[in-house]
Amino acid sequence: MDFSRLDHDRKNRTGFPEVIFCQGKADEFLIDIYKKMYEADGQVFGTRATEEQYQLLKNHIPEIQYDKISRILKAVKPEVEAARLELIGNIAVVTAGTADIPVAEEAAQTAEYFGSKVNRLYDVGVSGIHRILSNVDVLNQANVVVAVAGMEGALASVVGGLVKVPVVAVPTSVGYGANLGGISALLTMINSCANGISVVNIDNGYGAGYIATQINRLAEGVIDR
Amino acid sequence: MDFSRLDHDRKNRTGFPEVIFCQGKADEFLIDIYKKMYEADGQVFGTRATEEQYQLLKNHIPEIQYDKISRILKAVKPEVEAARLELIGNIAVVTAGTADIPVAEEAAQTAEYFGSKVNRLYDVGVSGIHRILSNVDVLNQANVVVAVAGMEGALASVVGGLVKVPVVAVPTSVGYGANLGGISALLTMINSCANGISVVNIDNGYGAGYIATQINRLAEGVIDR
Amino acid sequence: MDFSRLDHDRKNRTGFPEVIFCQGKADEFLIDIYKKMYEADGQVFGTRATEEQYQLLKNHIPEIQYDKISRILKAVKPEVEAARLELIGNIAVVTAGTADIPVAEEAAQTAEYFGSKVNRLYDVGVSGIHRILSNVDVLNQANVVVAVAGMEGALASVVGGLVKVPVVAVPTSVGYGANLGGISALLTMINSCANGISVVNIDNGYGAGYIATQINRLAEGVIDR
Amino acid sequence: MDFSRLDHDRKNRTGFPEVIFCQGKADEFLIDIYKKMYEADGQVFGTRATEEQYQLLKNHIPEIQYDKISRILKAVKPEVEAARLELIGNIAVVTAGTADIPVAEEAAQTAEYFGSKVNRLYDVGVSGIHRILSNVDVLNQANVVVAVAGMEGALASVVGGLVKVPVVAVPTSVGYGANLGGISALLTMINSCANGISVVNIDNGYGAGYIATQINRLAEGVIDR
Amino acid sequence: MDFSRLDHDRKNRTGFPEVIFCQGKADEFLIDIYKKMYEADGQVFGTRATEEQYQLLKNHIPEIQYDKISRILKAVKPEVEAARLELIGNIAVVTAGTADIPVAEEAAQTAEYFGSKVNRLYDVGVSGIHRILSNVDVLNQANVVVAVAGMEGALASVVGGLVKVPVVAVPTSVGYGANLGGISALLTMINSCANGISVVNIDNGYGAGYIATQINRLAEGVIDR
Amino acid sequence: MDFSRLDHDRKNRTGFPEVIFCQGKADEFLIDIYKKMYEADGQVFGTRATEEQYQLLKNHIPEIQYDKISRILKAVKPEVEAARLELIGNIAVVTAGTADIPVAEEAAQTAEYFGSKVNRLYDVGVSGIHRILSNVDVLNQANVVVAVAGMEGALASVVGGLVKVPVVAVPTSVGYGANLGGISALLTMINSCANGISVVNIDNGYGAGYIATQINRLAEGVIDR
Amino acid sequence: MDFSRLDHDRKNRTGFPEVIFCQGKADEFLIDIYKKMYEADGQVFGTRATEEQYQLLKNHIPEIQYDKISRILKAVKPEVEAARLELIGNIAVVTAGTADIPVAEEAAQTAEYFGSKVNRLYDVGVSGIHRILSNVDVLNQANVVVAVAGMEGALASVVGGLVKVPVVAVPTSVGYGANLGGISALLTMINSCANGISVVNIDNGYGAGYIATQINRLAEGVIDR
Amino acid sequence: MDFSRLDHDRKNRTGFPEVIFCQGKADEFLIDIYKKMYEADGQVFGTRATEEQYQLLKNHIPEIQYDKISRILKAVKPEVEAARLELIGNIAVVTAGTADIPVAEEAAQTAEYFGSKVNRLYDVGVSGIHRILSNVDVLNQANVVVAVAGMEGALASVVGGLVKVPVVAVPTSVGYGANLGGISALLTMINSCANGISVVNIDNGYGAGYIATQINRLAEGVIDR
Repeated sequence: MDFSRLDHDRKNRTGFPEVIFCQGKADEFLIDIYKKMYEADGQVFGTRATEEQYQLLKNHIPEIQYDKISRILKAVKPEVEAARLELIGNIAVVTAGTADIPVAEEAAQTAEYFGSKVNRLYDVGVSGIHRILSNVDVLNQANVVVAVAGMEGALASVVGGLVKVPVVAVPTSVGYGANLGGISALLTMINSCANGISVVNIDNGYGAGYIATQINRLAEGVIDR
Repeated sequence: MDFSRLDHDRKNRTGFPEVIFCQGKADEFLIDIYKKMYEADGQVFGTRATEEQYQLLKNHIPEIQYDKISRILKAVKPEVEAARLELIGNIAVVTAGTADIPVAEEAAQTAEYFGSKVNRLYDVGVSGIHRILSNVDVLNQANVVVAVAGMEGALASVVGGLVKVPVVAVPTSVGYGANLGGISALLTMINSCANGISVVNIDNGYGAGYIATQINRLAEGVIDR
Repeated sequence: MDFSRLDHDRKNRTGFPEVIFCQGKADEFLIDIYKKMYEADGQVFGTRATEEQYQLLKNHIPEIQYDKISRILKAVKPEVEAARLELIGNIAVVTAGTADIPVAEEAAQTAEYFGSKVNRLYDVGVSGIHRILSNVDVLNQANVVVAVAGMEGALASVVGGLVKVPVVAVPTSVGYGANLGGISALLTMINSCANGISVVNIDNGYGAGYIATQINRLAEGVIDR
Repeated sequence: MDFSRLDHDRKNRTGFPEVIFCQGKADEFLIDIYKKMYEADGQVFGTRATEEQYQLLKNHIPEIQYDKISRILKAVKPEVEAARLELIGNIAVVTAGTADIPVAEEAAQTAEYFGSKVNRLYDVGVSGIHRILSNVDVLNQANVVVAVAGMEGALASVVGGLVKVPVVAVPTSVGYGANLGGISALLTMINSCANGISVVNIDNGYGAGYIATQINRLAEGVIDR
Repeated sequence: MDFSRLDHDRKNRTGFPEVIFCQGKADEFLIDIYKKMYEADGQVFGTRATEEQYQLLKNHIPEIQYDKISRILKAVKPEVEAARLELIGNIAVVTAGTADIPVAEEAAQTAEYFGSKVNRLYDVGVSGIHRILSNVDVLNQANVVVAVAGMEGALASVVGGLVKVPVVAVPTSVGYGANLGGISALLTMINSCANGISVVNIDNGYGAGYIATQINRLAEGVIDR
Repeated sequence: MDFSRLDHDRKNRTGFPEVIFCQGKADEFLIDIYKKMYEADGQVFGTRATEEQYQLLKNHIPEIQYDKISRILKAVKPEVEAARLELIGNIAVVTAGTADIPVAEEAAQTAEYFGSKVNRLYDVGVSGIHRILSNVDVLNQANVVVAVAGMEGALASVVGGLVKVPVVAVPTSVGYGANLGGISALLTMINSCANGISVVNIDNGYGAGYIATQINRLAEGVIDR
Repeated sequence: MDFSRLDHDRKNRTGFPEVIFCQGKADEFLIDIYKKMYEADGQVFGTRATEEQYQLLKNHIPEIQYDKISRILKAVKPEVEAARLELIGNIAVVTAGTADIPVAEEAAQTAEYFGSKVNRLYDVGVSGIHRILSNVDVLNQANVVVAVAGMEGALASVVGGLVKVPVVAVPTSVGYGANLGGISALLTMINSCANGISVVNIDNGYGAGYIATQINRLAEGVIDR
Repeated sequence: MDFSRLDHDRKNRTGFPEVIFCQGKADEFLIDIYKKMYEADGQVFGTRATEEQYQLLKNHIPEIQYDKISRILKAVKPEVEAARLELIGNIAVVTAGTADIPVAEEAAQTAEYFGSKVNRLYDVGVSGIHRILSNVDVLNQANVVVAVAGMEGALASVVGGLVKVPVVAVPTSVGYGANLGGISALLTMINSCANGISVVNIDNGYGAGYIATQINRLAEGVIDR
């Protein structure tokens, strides 16, 4: 299946390296793309990987690393790691509950891979409102807040009312019954009464980490036009 | 169209008098039922009435009164009014925005008609969270809280996390676009991460006022089994 | 994954101890939280637990007990058990069919854990209407009725027309085809023509048991403001 | 617009004369078809007609009659009326509320036009369950029951559990909010826990009257194969 | 779990014996109910049974029989079988494709168990319209037609236009993608442009067999009021 | 509001002139674009125009013509009309009912404007299947069939099973209740069991006329690459 | 109806003045709030205003201005206008079609009111892809792009693939049939295969202008923490 | 289960041989039909086959071949293969991503089986727009384009704006969260702002290959009426 077209120009065009969406990729294809990118760029970063995919790729790239929680599968050559610039700026990632943490970690680690400093604030959902209120100062130091929440997703609205900076809201599929696999949380966030909230797909931690980095780079003045 | 079956036993069975749902009722039918109930019971109370229905009924029951905001159309004979018991207990009715007030007033005035004391707390939505937080004491004195909110309906979750008493959540059709005519707020409330929240139909202020009164009566020890 | 924020103030704020939602929790996390709560409070109560989770936790808390039907996983130290207050009041829990019993038991056992006396009335669905009618007296002695039904969920409407007290309706995912995983029953209950009905999420027995306890406490005069 | 193909064979094929669905028909077209059918068959029967359509057609067929409630617009020549056979059998038409009566009348009058005897039982919804229970004998004398209900549509399930004969359930658009224009009642009826219930489109009184007549004819042994 | 209330009066009230919906029933419960009914009535009939449930029950009722296609699990004592009345009347069961046959067989065998004669006509979908057209005479001899179809479910409309008798339409979950698990076929049938069509739940062969038997009995004059 | 970018290259790129979608266009804008295109090209063709828009434009282009049924608003200069090529090929446009004709005419007249010969076959829905069957020869002479149907939209499936050429299916919003404004017919057509059917948006006669012309041109060998 | 709570702290907390959502506001309320804010702040800015609301307010604030396209109703005192800071930064606002311009103008004028410089690029939808491609340089000079599109909303994905900066996507209700009032465009944007895209509510130009300003301020280094 | 009716006339009526939809077919049935068709026609072609079905059939037809990617299971006798006509015309099949390739291959190989020449162009999604733009010439040489895309499905709109020939759009279930199993991509394509696009069911590569062949045959002048 040699049909994929490598988008060599992507880094120039968008300022970001390619990231692999591992879920559902055929084994041979995954091996092939990981090996090619690791050779060419000295690093490769994939999301939504399974434990089985990790075991598979370890045979080909022994130094590959897998994070069970975020499901990120990453390999970076030492010389590339050594050459990485210091993380910049400040992105706050908040979650409503502990079950939202995997999506939040996908966002946070994606942002870190792209060069952003991240501040985590987890399990601060609105049913115990003091948890978020006692951290307003932390939120206000960030250039952008990523708000991750399932069930009814009300966290985004409360955060939106407390901060000056944009909030990237990530609905999660956490919940059951009328949560409709995350659609309910998505609708909550899209209809938010608070300003400054925009929304990405359900469980799309990667997308939120990407946008947050774009905003963080703008705020730190490091976008390269 | 003489098909309606008066439910004479209702008061005994449920403890509540009949209330008229005016919306969409044919003129002759509305006149007929208002006149019959006014004669029989000395009072009649209708919800979702229009200005036109008010003008129509004034010809037949000159002392009838219409409240534009709640759209309640009510007539009570002086001797019945005089014999009314003092309002009891404490129901808090809160709204997220000013656009939710018509539904909240339907709830509040229904509860008052059924004998409950009501405490109103309007325009305390979560995008300015200090507004609800500075009123927690008021909420905690109530036997039950009616939380009325449109758009994303996050108010119910925040209230639910702050109080010891049940919260009856009323989604409203306030909003636009992906609010789906109130379905989004309903889903938010049904999926709430906070405990103690149960939900009624979109814009159903009457239903919330009814349930709140049932709970208020239980709390005040005046249910008649 | 040490991200969870214990909500130490919850008991004071809401009057209820924390309950664990076991479904989907990672093993290490579940063990950790059960052990901590068991130490701190002498009791721990979880819902939606699997047989596997029970086996897992038995290694750490040998006296833990699992109820297959309600899927509740509970451990209470003898001294805590001995100090429990007598169950108070009266909550009726009714189901339409036998398939709704697991959700009903989650509600009933939750209410009992929170101190309420529960009266069970199962398999009294409306297709054999005499079954509920012959039990009206039982319903009317309760402070609140929890009505649990899947398929078309019509039970709540019939119960609502028969009693003076609030009905907390729990739609279940029982059924197939156009039941839409419980959404149809939820819609039935939200649109009920009967008064006094409010609704919780699909299969949310726990939530219904919580609200019923709030109402039961109010009726018995034991809320602590 | 002379595109319509008259289905001359329909009466032979199905045993029923053509009926006109008036809603949305252009004026010229409606006049044309009413005049042609009135000439050819001596009778014409239309559903969902407006007051304006009635006024329009009175100019062309002075003896035409309009029923405001059912919105049926009908003209029958005296000699055809005189030659009509006596109504046969027994169809029971029941409604949950008074607002469902227009749809019920469309069903009832359609069945009568097709030669069936109809027994009306209106405003017997399940929130006052005694109303339907005290009429079980009436239901059991029918060959088929048409159950018409909006809001949550629970009536069909209760009736289905009480009778030996088929129940044709008609959801109506009566209600508001989460009634979704009748979809909620339709889902209730499709998911009914009772046996013997089949469902037609929302507000489709005509369709129910047609099917009920088919069954009534079978029961009375007058189908002509 | 001894909560089920046997509905001893059902046979008198509805004219039909109880049928077991096996899907999802706990093993102990299924064994218990099969044994009890087999003892009491000499026969027991269940739908949606699995191969595993069959193996389980064979240990308790060796003469039990399982039909893989219809998934019906049935046991009838020889003396009961011997005493069965001859099948009466005529029900036609038609399917669009071969994949719809399991649902059709559930309908057909249910109707036979309830005493009706059944005429099967399978794989006559509208994409090869001559297949149904060449069987119109067969359809017209039936007292009622059960039309079973998945995908777009157009078969019901074509049949409805060809026959004088009622059509009970059964949407199936056969299909993929935008078939929405059978919802698309259900909508097709509910919106049918043909008359005489009423609809049951997705894959509800049992329900269709029940209603068809009710109609068949009426047509054969054997309903016992 | 001089923001529109004329797509001068469109004719070269796609082979089709621009067509105006009149619905909702502001008056000044509509006048401006009609006048500009009429000057530049000698002809202008718009869909979904209202009677009011026609009256408005007649003041500026007196020779403009409006067809009430298709709602097409068209002006062609005599010299352009004279220079038109003869219509080519054969497109069959069929409808289920008379209410579908406006959409069918939009398709037919669009195809004619684009140079295709059209064969109309209206009111041949499947509830009277002989109507379409007696016209199979007509269908088979076409290069492509446009099948227009509302309600349950079953016509497309029957046509698809009868012809060798592609069927472009157009769902219409004709119907009520569970037709969901045309979504039900769209789902029927998308799930069709017949081959050779592809679908356009609800009521999109224009789109069907466009595609049919593309196919007709290919069949007649007049595409200009 | 003196229930609204002015959020005096909002400017400090969020950095933005209050904006009035005029749609559906009662006349007295609108007059009251416009007058109060105009007095207190010297300026007032409202969205979704009607022509009638403009006429109404002109009686009270003669210098008020109404923009028909964006439906923005604005009054600024000369001394406030004179004191306004120069617009900063660069926000690109792009639309797919001309029908999307009202929403785009709401976004653009909101951003300008909040102090941002805006670059408009309208009618550059993907059906004529050269229109957006020839403007890539313009897009890349912006700090953030607001992409406004109805129908299928594909513009956001194409823009997202072309730029380095965040794209705030605004689905519009432009379209018909299966556009579901804008839900289809919203789903397109939420599921975008391009990175850097986050989404606001249907037709929510105001929200997009707000977020774009937040990002623009960050990029220009003028956020005041 | 010998119920299937072979449609012997299909080839004459539609010009296409029967193709087997393998998914969900019972083993015995699949063996039977493959053997019969292989005997009768010398070739058999099935879609959506599993690896297990392949292993099963290899025992009966050793020369059978399975393509893992397209899931096509095909057997052609050498003499039939030898007698095949040369592939004709030109169908372009394009995909947005690599994950869409299985559906694209089902389309391509179906078209080839039916005698069409196919030109593949994969992984040319709109997030890297240059990939499709650099291939416009290839697209314009085709008689028809099959555009296969999941996630937001924007590819179809861009292609539609670039070519003169019809585009058959195939939404795929590729994606997650708010992709709704492919419904989102389907809606995108149905609402496309570009002309010349018609849509088939989600993942229906077979259907697209069939229609593309119909159009290709028309363009090549080889339809046999």
